[in-house]
Amino acid sequence: MPLPTSRPTPSGGSGPDLPTATDSGTGVGAGSTGVGPSHMSPGEFRRCGHAVVDWIADYWQDLPSRPVTPPVTPGQVADRLPAQAPETGEDFGTLLQDLDTLILPGMAHWQHPGFLGFFPMTTSGPAVLAQMLTAGLNAQGMAWATNPAATELEQRVMDWLADLMALPDRFTRGGVIQDTASSAMLVALTAALWRRAGEQWRNHGSGPGYTVYTSTEANCSVHKAVRLSGLGDLQLRRIPVESHTQALRPDLLRQAVEADLSAGLTPVAAIATIGTTSTTAIDPLPAVADICRSHDVWLHVDGAYAGVAAICPELRWINDGLEHADSYSVNTHKWLLTGFECSPMWFADPAAVTQAMTVTQSYLREVTGDPRQAPDYRDWQIPLGRPFRALKLWFTLRWYGADGLRAHLRRGVELARIFADLVRGDDRFEVVAPSPFGLVCFRLRADCSVNAQLLKRLNAGGDILLSSTDVNGRFTLRMAAGGTATTADHIAHAWSRIRAEADRLTGTGHRSG
Amino acid sequence: MPLPTSRPTPSGGSGPDLPTATDSGTGVGAGSTGVGPSHMSPGEFRRCGHAVVDWIADYWQDLPSRPVTPPVTPGQVADRLPAQAPETGEDFGTLLQDLDTLILPGMAHWQHPGFLGFFPMTTSGPAVLAQMLTAGLNAQGMAWATNPAATELEQRVMDWLADLMALPDRFTRGGVIQDTASSAMLVALTAALWRRAGEQWRNHGSGPGYTVYTSTEANCSVHKAVRLSGLGDLQLRRIPVESHTQALRPDLLRQAVEADLSAGLTPVAAIATIGTTSTTAIDPLPAVADICRSHDVWLHVDGAYAGVAAICPELRWINDGLEHADSYSVNTHKWLLTGFECSPMWFADPAAVTQAMTVTQSYLREVTGDPRQAPDYRDWQIPLGRPFRALKLWFTLRWYGADGLRAHLRRGVELARIFADLVRGDDRFEVVAPSPFGLVCFRLRADCSVNAQLLKRLNAGGDILLSSTDVNGRFTLRMAAGGTATTADHIAHAWSRIRAEADRLTGTGHRSG
Repeated sequence: MPLPTSRPTPSGGSGPDLPTATDSGTGVGAGSTGVGPSHMSPGEFRRCGHAVVDWIADYWQDLPSRPVTPPVTPGQVADRLPAQAPETGEDFGTLLQDLDTLILPGMAHWQHPGFLGFFPMTTSGPAVLAQMLTAGLNAQGMAWATNPAATELEQRVMDWLADLMALPDRFTRGGVIQDTASSAMLVALTAALWRRAGEQWRNHGSGPGYTVYTSTEANCSVHKAVRLSGLGDLQLRRIPVESHTQALRPDLLRQAVEADLSAGLTPVAAIATIGTTSTTAIDPLPAVADICRSHDVWLHVDGAYAGVAAICPELRWINDGLEHADSYSVNTHKWLLTGFECSPMWFADPAAVTQAMTVTQSYLREVTGDPRQAPDYRDWQIPLGRPFRALKLWFTLRWYGADGLRAHLRRGVELARIFADLVRGDDRFEVVAPSPFGLVCFRLRADCSVNAQLLKRLNAGGDILLSSTDVNGRFTLRMAAGGTATTADHIAHAWSRIRAEADRLTGTGHRSG
Repeated sequence: MPLPTSRPTPSGGSGPDLPTATDSGTGVGAGSTGVGPSHMSPGEFRRCGHAVVDWIADYWQDLPSRPVTPPVTPGQVADRLPAQAPETGEDFGTLLQDLDTLILPGMAHWQHPGFLGFFPMTTSGPAVLAQMLTAGLNAQGMAWATNPAATELEQRVMDWLADLMALPDRFTRGGVIQDTASSAMLVALTAALWRRAGEQWRNHGSGPGYTVYTSTEANCSVHKAVRLSGLGDLQLRRIPVESHTQALRPDLLRQAVEADLSAGLTPVAAIATIGTTSTTAIDPLPAVADICRSHDVWLHVDGAYAGVAAICPELRWINDGLEHADSYSVNTHKWLLTGFECSPMWFADPAAVTQAMTVTQSYLREVTGDPRQAPDYRDWQIPLGRPFRALKLWFTLRWYGADGLRAHLRRGVELARIFADLVRGDDRFEVVAPSPFGLVCFRLRADCSVNAQLLKRLNAGGDILLSSTDVNGRFTLRMAAGGTATTADHIAHAWSRIRAEADRLTGTGHRSG
């Protein structure tokens, strides 16, 4: 599709190659004053937009031919970019071309079928289309009044998701979409501190030694939230895990809480995880919840990666204990196809967070409603403004339907099972943690340095990307299935690469029985 | 353009109406396993995507025919939405149709030419197209290594913007894109607290009575950041403003800081504003900076709305004093055409923030780089993950060029000048604060209740939306120009509506000389 090769005239009028019928009228990019900036005309937007849609479809189809991570060194991309912005506007064809030649070669491709590192960050056709619409609408929902439909759709679709995941009733109408699980963590901790401070804020210092509890395996966002909320690093208690499961040890949690209470400190919050980032370990929620209830400690549950697996009945056991959580967050942008960013979060008592977070000014007078009628979601989150993220969750849940979502999740679990079986079939390797979801943690039965070397060689090939972690102090490789483009063939290929590099590193061939 | 009316088969294969040539290959939505979820095929994505692009262009062109805010009451939209997600997938045509019939009638249209409330939240063709591409790439840049090109483009384009705005050299290579100015505020305060605490975190309570200073007119995000960072509400000092300019009074700031020092407290940060949300007042930065430097107080400057005006040489005086700021943030999603969200922020010493924010785990080992070579932007912000926002800033700056950006900004200023002149020409009204940018604050010379009534009647018409604030304790209307679709005709129409409602309310006609 040909793109405009010259800029429109400064008057914003149609160039000779632009259809005049679609260029009339006002709207974004069509200001009718005779002088002013040269906004993109509606006709140009249509033509360039169609080209962008095709570009995305081509990109997805061409992904397997690209290296999953780029062979670049720091500064290499920047060095090819001009030092200054242009004085006069450039045409869209040039921009798209520069994306191809300057940017793409320096990107890691998270949608690549060989992207098996970290966790998958899935998106989908309906999610991308919804994000386009969100960008076009460009309306923000800081309050019910500034976007009533977005607010009500969010509340409804969060109830849909809670229902799909069979969450406890206490979360009904308590849902909100955060950008990321890190922000959800900070919001939860803020609400916990508010509640513990007798619903007054900490006007007289940080109070009687507030303490926070999580496992040594919890996501780094716990630590970040503790810091941001003004507690010292030493006020975060990292409870050891059981070595085989990598799950928090509730006996040690209870000891820590009781020791702090004896020392005159004030336990405020515990963060348990359903599916840790390191190994997808599942903390024993019922036991953790017991301790929290005994001592009025806020229980936040981080299900960023694995929480959505509860959509499948056979994995719903992961919810056990959630009925006692004060807050719960998941990322649909990891495994549930909505694209980045989308972090659904639920509160058992939304008033705890809105009371802690609400600050007002007279310029928001017209958009401050009655929370009993409709939420002003600005008071449920860190930023004041908020994009219309509910649209992509709505589109994604509807396009796939519950059965389509289950099929997608099950494929990730199935590919991980296939991979784990391959690893177990080679006695040079070991699977080092349970793999109930899409992640398999494994290692060569060899020194950490050999495993680090293995990972380095694997990732240098450009066809696959794995990542690593430490499990019980030992360097471990992580293979995360669940990306939409990753098939059994890609898993088989990854394993053949791993075996071949192991052959070279260990000087041995495959020794499975 | 016809959209698919039936779902593809579960195998993900092409239906009879889908072109097979474009449907082959892997990629998002084209998994090749025989069983699995029915991802959208590339052919469907192209067809639906073209329809979405046309939908957006149509939406922008049809905006003037819609009410700027919807005549709905709480619950009205939600009541029409099903209680549960569908069990099986729905086709995309149905989704788009429901957007039209269920959602749009309940939305406030921020891109409407009559949207004159709050501040404009502008977007543009190139920004929306970049957001589409960002959604399609769906790659995240938590670290240089997870998206080298996005990281380096962000650093470069932030230098471009600093150069366009003629920012002090100290901010070069100190730029990062936050989601919103609220998040920027919290990050700045966190860095300030870190620095003041001797670059150690607050392990022993909140320290020796940390205090924060801002004007009574500062954005509510200052208050929210103070709360989130664990300081009490009473630790925020709200310094009164000069009544004519609504700018912070530096004499009172100095008194407050010195009184706190005498009382053994520790002043940590001051937040000054270039263009307050209420009236676009400009705090006296040089005087504020003087006080901050005398007492080692971190100076954060919030230029969320007005900061980008410095792209115009005739408005560059607003930067006066920025050479002493420790951090500075603006929103390009307000006046600079990039769409929501995009909040560029600069640090004079990025190490202050990265040291305060950096937390690590072994699973991030491969993506932790040397900050002297390339930034890992996760350590510059609250969330761990981050979308590729630099792309839309790059596209927007290049499409418009410096002269196009200046033309756009100048049109907003010009429309505000036209409006202010109209208001001044009617002696029933008064302009109550300086209006150097796109905002005019005005009121009837009458009781607050009459002004509140005036606003209510104006906004009930559906053709325009204004908002309000309090200035020197009196109810004041706000008219914000700068939206891309708003022209001199719309400003004239708004004024005729205002005059007509004033006639009815005051029982008088126009009495200008």
